[in-house]
Amino acid sequence: MIHVGIVGASGYSGAELMRLLAPRTDISLDVVSAATSAGKRVDEMYPSLTGVVDLTLGDFTPSLFDGLDLVFVALPSGGGMTVVPELLDRAGRVIDLGGDFRLQDALLYESFYGHRHTATGLLPEAVYGLPELNADRIVTACLIANPGCYPTSAILPLAPLLKIGAISPEGIVITSLSGVSGAGRSASVDMSFAEVNENVRAYKIGTHQHIPEIQSVLATVAGKDVSLSFVPHLVPLTRGIYTTIHASLVGTFDRDELLRVCSGFYADAPFVRVRQTVPQIKDVVMTNFCDFTLTVEERTKQVIITSTIDNLVKGAAGQALQNMNLMFSLPETAGLLGKELHHV
Amino acid sequence: MIHVGIVGASGYSGAELMRLLAPRTDISLDVVSAATSAGKRVDEMYPSLTGVVDLTLGDFTPSLFDGLDLVFVALPSGGGMTVVPELLDRAGRVIDLGGDFRLQDALLYESFYGHRHTATGLLPEAVYGLPELNADRIVTACLIANPGCYPTSAILPLAPLLKIGAISPEGIVITSLSGVSGAGRSASVDMSFAEVNENVRAYKIGTHQHIPEIQSVLATVAGKDVSLSFVPHLVPLTRGIYTTIHASLVGTFDRDELLRVCSGFYADAPFVRVRQTVPQIKDVVMTNFCDFTLTVEERTKQVIITSTIDNLVKGAAGQALQNMNLMFSLPETAGLLGKELHHV
Amino acid sequence: MIHVGIVGASGYSGAELMRLLAPRTDISLDVVSAATSAGKRVDEMYPSLTGVVDLTLGDFTPSLFDGLDLVFVALPSGGGMTVVPELLDRAGRVIDLGGDFRLQDALLYESFYGHRHTATGLLPEAVYGLPELNADRIVTACLIANPGCYPTSAILPLAPLLKIGAISPEGIVITSLSGVSGAGRSASVDMSFAEVNENVRAYKIGTHQHIPEIQSVLATVAGKDVSLSFVPHLVPLTRGIYTTIHASLVGTFDRDELLRVCSGFYADAPFVRVRQTVPQIKDVVMTNFCDFTLTVEERTKQVIITSTIDNLVKGAAGQALQNMNLMFSLPETAGLLGKELHHV
Amino acid sequence: MIHVGIVGASGYSGAELMRLLAPRTDISLDVVSAATSAGKRVDEMYPSLTGVVDLTLGDFTPSLFDGLDLVFVALPSGGGMTVVPELLDRAGRVIDLGGDFRLQDALLYESFYGHRHTATGLLPEAVYGLPELNADRIVTACLIANPGCYPTSAILPLAPLLKIGAISPEGIVITSLSGVSGAGRSASVDMSFAEVNENVRAYKIGTHQHIPEIQSVLATVAGKDVSLSFVPHLVPLTRGIYTTIHASLVGTFDRDELLRVCSGFYADAPFVRVRQTVPQIKDVVMTNFCDFTLTVEERTKQVIITSTIDNLVKGAAGQALQNMNLMFSLPETAGLLGKELHHV
Repeated sequence: MIHVGIVGASGYSGAELMRLLAPRTDISLDVVSAATSAGKRVDEMYPSLTGVVDLTLGDFTPSLFDGLDLVFVALPSGGGMTVVPELLDRAGRVIDLGGDFRLQDALLYESFYGHRHTATGLLPEAVYGLPELNADRIVTACLIANPGCYPTSAILPLAPLLKIGAISPEGIVITSLSGVSGAGRSASVDMSFAEVNENVRAYKIGTHQHIPEIQSVLATVAGKDVSLSFVPHLVPLTRGIYTTIHASLVGTFDRDELLRVCSGFYADAPFVRVRQTVPQIKDVVMTNFCDFTLTVEERTKQVIITSTIDNLVKGAAGQALQNMNLMFSLPETAGLLGKELHHV
Repeated sequence: MIHVGIVGASGYSGAELMRLLAPRTDISLDVVSAATSAGKRVDEMYPSLTGVVDLTLGDFTPSLFDGLDLVFVALPSGGGMTVVPELLDRAGRVIDLGGDFRLQDALLYESFYGHRHTATGLLPEAVYGLPELNADRIVTACLIANPGCYPTSAILPLAPLLKIGAISPEGIVITSLSGVSGAGRSASVDMSFAEVNENVRAYKIGTHQHIPEIQSVLATVAGKDVSLSFVPHLVPLTRGIYTTIHASLVGTFDRDELLRVCSGFYADAPFVRVRQTVPQIKDVVMTNFCDFTLTVEERTKQVIITSTIDNLVKGAAGQALQNMNLMFSLPETAGLLGKELHHV
Repeated sequence: MIHVGIVGASGYSGAELMRLLAPRTDISLDVVSAATSAGKRVDEMYPSLTGVVDLTLGDFTPSLFDGLDLVFVALPSGGGMTVVPELLDRAGRVIDLGGDFRLQDALLYESFYGHRHTATGLLPEAVYGLPELNADRIVTACLIANPGCYPTSAILPLAPLLKIGAISPEGIVITSLSGVSGAGRSASVDMSFAEVNENVRAYKIGTHQHIPEIQSVLATVAGKDVSLSFVPHLVPLTRGIYTTIHASLVGTFDRDELLRVCSGFYADAPFVRVRQTVPQIKDVVMTNFCDFTLTVEERTKQVIITSTIDNLVKGAAGQALQNMNLMFSLPETAGLLGKELHHV
Repeated sequence: MIHVGIVGASGYSGAELMRLLAPRTDISLDVVSAATSAGKRVDEMYPSLTGVVDLTLGDFTPSLFDGLDLVFVALPSGGGMTVVPELLDRAGRVIDLGGDFRLQDALLYESFYGHRHTATGLLPEAVYGLPELNADRIVTACLIANPGCYPTSAILPLAPLLKIGAISPEGIVITSLSGVSGAGRSASVDMSFAEVNENVRAYKIGTHQHIPEIQSVLATVAGKDVSLSFVPHLVPLTRGIYTTIHASLVGTFDRDELLRVCSGFYADAPFVRVRQTVPQIKDVVMTNFCDFTLTVEERTKQVIITSTIDNLVKGAAGQALQNMNLMFSLPETAGLLGKELHHV
């Protein structure tokens, strides 16, 4: 039995972790903390977890996590670097769902996140937890930086194409649409129903913190610098990310060849589905799948990709469990696919 | 030219007042205050009012309202009784869109609103501003208690039936559905998109402050006590109220007779449309209409009414302008109907 | 291994049956038919079932169902009576998710459904498949009439109260709100996004076919006639039913006593959760639970119930699987709860 | 008094034309036809127009339009070329809201629209009705090709930049999001609430008929060929288009300079608002405005534009009225702005 805990369990990613962990018979969720909701029972905050999670949220007290095999940190960015150093002393391993350990370059972090990095000593050992690219390193990692939701939806389809040089690493244009759960569970006029419903707005154009994350991960894949533009949009739905990408075709590949390249690249990846038809959010909601397809626009020599994930599953909690499965030599799909995926 | 001001202009009812007042050439909106947003331009908070309202929100400073002909108070309940006494000393007349002056009985107010009434001296002169019932008194009133949104949707269809004794004044059951703008513009997890979308919940069952409001207004119409149950629900839409009412038929009226009674009762009411078919929210959104119809269920001897309004227009700002029109001897429909209704 | 088939698999209830059956290792889904979509692969119509259901929809050919242990019929009302007689000759047992076998009285059926009943010979053996009330008869039934979605949400909370005589069997008022998936998967302007979004409308007031279903089931429980009004509303969400009920209190029960009565009544019912707080749709979506609570309004002597289910699960496919579990002596919760509930 | 008619009045664009024409005192709407709904009163199909439009939909009989000053054709593409030739013989002028006369090149039309053009003789005299670019020719035109919704949102921000050569005419990437009313009022599973809600999907990638429209209009502005990619997406809202554009910066312009260029270009355009902040759909819904802003991303040398319109107003009916105003020497903003814009 693997014993785990969650720091920041009251937010949407934390709740999704609890939902996905609850039916596991090989994992025991022992401790859940949430500073702002300490003292509340989980099923009081999330009535849908009644009879499923029988725990009370505690304050963040490091000693509570002593001896656990793994701790998930589901805090807003800036929270991870505060608690992870201490957690690594007390528990075996940590998966941070926030952005604090995704960038190896602390200065780059500070310029996009807007505050100093206070745990730079841990950056060298942090492993970017995208299992489809980094499985070998994830297996042995003590500190996993779980990828951002937008980056997951963009990196997965771009990686095989950059790897073989079928698209230019420069001038990539990424446009993403996100449901509101991606912004977390918090009181804000901007996220209120009356402001989001019947509305669309772009935000953080050219300044979103996922830009350097996508660029640096893809640069490693491509073996050279990658330069891209990224514009995220808030659209009126609760769950789901839809990402449309334009990249310049290099060479003479046609659509079928590129789809085959992608299918081959992900032949052993249970959660990537390379599609013939245009994907849609509703086909991946509540699952750990990333669905994508691509088109070669002959007229403009552009490769056009459409990709979709559930931001709370493959974009957060599901991916974290996929990482956990690899770290503890469990089947990669345990609790995430088919007979193993329990929804309550 | 009539000079008016708004206290609490930054909320949804305040913004709707500004939207409806803006195109009026007979009304000058001179002062807008909003404590929490003081210093902001109106079109900064509501970009849709760019080029339409050229004002900056101020702090609530009573002297700013000196000499105005009319002040609209669009504060949460409890705010009206704080500012109205002083406003009545400085401006000619006041329309309070909140609940503070709707109940003549201060003890009843306190039991449903949960706090003491601090301006009971004004209650005797406050006139309930439902123009279809109270036009004579509205014309000369200095203080108008603008009706609640739910009560407007329920009182209008019930009044003619109670008036002629076609339904029992006891055992009336009112079930209402409201969009979220009815809860005002504020930061709250409960009103966030992720909590409201794909969800329905009832609230304040048996305890909602609109219960005594509906009962007391209808008692006056019926000439006897009225007893009813009322359950409001929050549904995932921005604007609109839908109210379904069951009442026991008295006597042998059939559907056509009752529809004729209602049509006759509202023959001179430009904003009440007695329908043959079941109304729907989308037919009244952005208008000052109340649409309703009724059915006589022979099997159960119940009269079943369905009624709908836009909570921000007929349920708040539009009704306030209808009251203003009456108070200043303007056409009742000015700025609210047909050629006069401007939307920007 | 139990071998089953589905007639009408292309609609939302059929798809939900496939989703819930897919992960079962004790059930083999062998045949799926759908006249209008014959020849299409299931994952072509429902891409979310890619890798989960590997079947092609066939025409309805009775011989295809020869020898199956159980056939689910998920056709619009009127379809069941056409195919069930033949299916009962070829397969062991049938669960009809439509309305054709829910009313024992063929004349009542014809007056509410608007067409003749052509399989009245089967009515005496049809068992109303609400497991919480009829488990004994379900176990041995060959033909199950799976309950309607609205009736499930209303009967479950009313049954214990009528059983002990705590509420009057007359004058019950039921107001229900339904998401659009309840209307099935079909092309219609009325169900288009542009007509449903930002809208609410009541329909079939006093004439809905679920009225006699609710009345007759409750009459059996109460041991006397039950008379009620029922108004369904379409609200802008995909899944979920919310039902609010008013009934006259008989005697002097208080809230706690009635909640205890309900909890006792459902002590062995794994899918009924008697709540202290007001339920909401989002807590039951994608589950087989019915959540309800009640209030005693002393002022009006009304018992006010709020109840919610997922119309496609407890209101259709989930309840059908619960019935199947009972019919084949499997655990009642198999595939529907906790570790057994797989979502793909 | 100008006498007008509408062919295809029952769809969403037709209804929007009626809504906007209704309060005009200088325009008389005399004839409305709609083949599929002939015989129905307008307020039966659109109850919100009760008391606003007192007309009955007729069959399309050309002689009904004899002698009118102007006919609006609001048919699906392919319908315009069928009726316009005859209408031009009978009425003075025609504005076609469909796509049949937007492309001067019939072969290009046929390759993108998928059917032959049967009225090529009218192409030379058709004027593309984007008032901000073509006012001079619109004034005297007999046949106006009213622009598509997506093209309106993309051409307006791109035109000034291409005009001065600030962006490259090659490699422009346009990503657009549309509400469902853009697809018209028709019965289809794809547009049903259950399929659109909580979903996003791209469609017609690289093949949408608006690609040649945008390219050819911009080529005229730029004085050279323009090449672009365009991916439209369906998002869950009723009204509104949101368009995000990436183009390569040429030269050393900074953001302020480019915003000034745009503001100057549209100094006399009452419906284009060049914004400092990112626009959102809710600020333009129900209006004839196009709001846009832009950013210069120094890192990638991309100009990133975000632009939004109401697809039924500036993207269809509002723009048609703006064209009508110009054609009949009325104020360009008549019925579309401020005091003149009536919403019922």
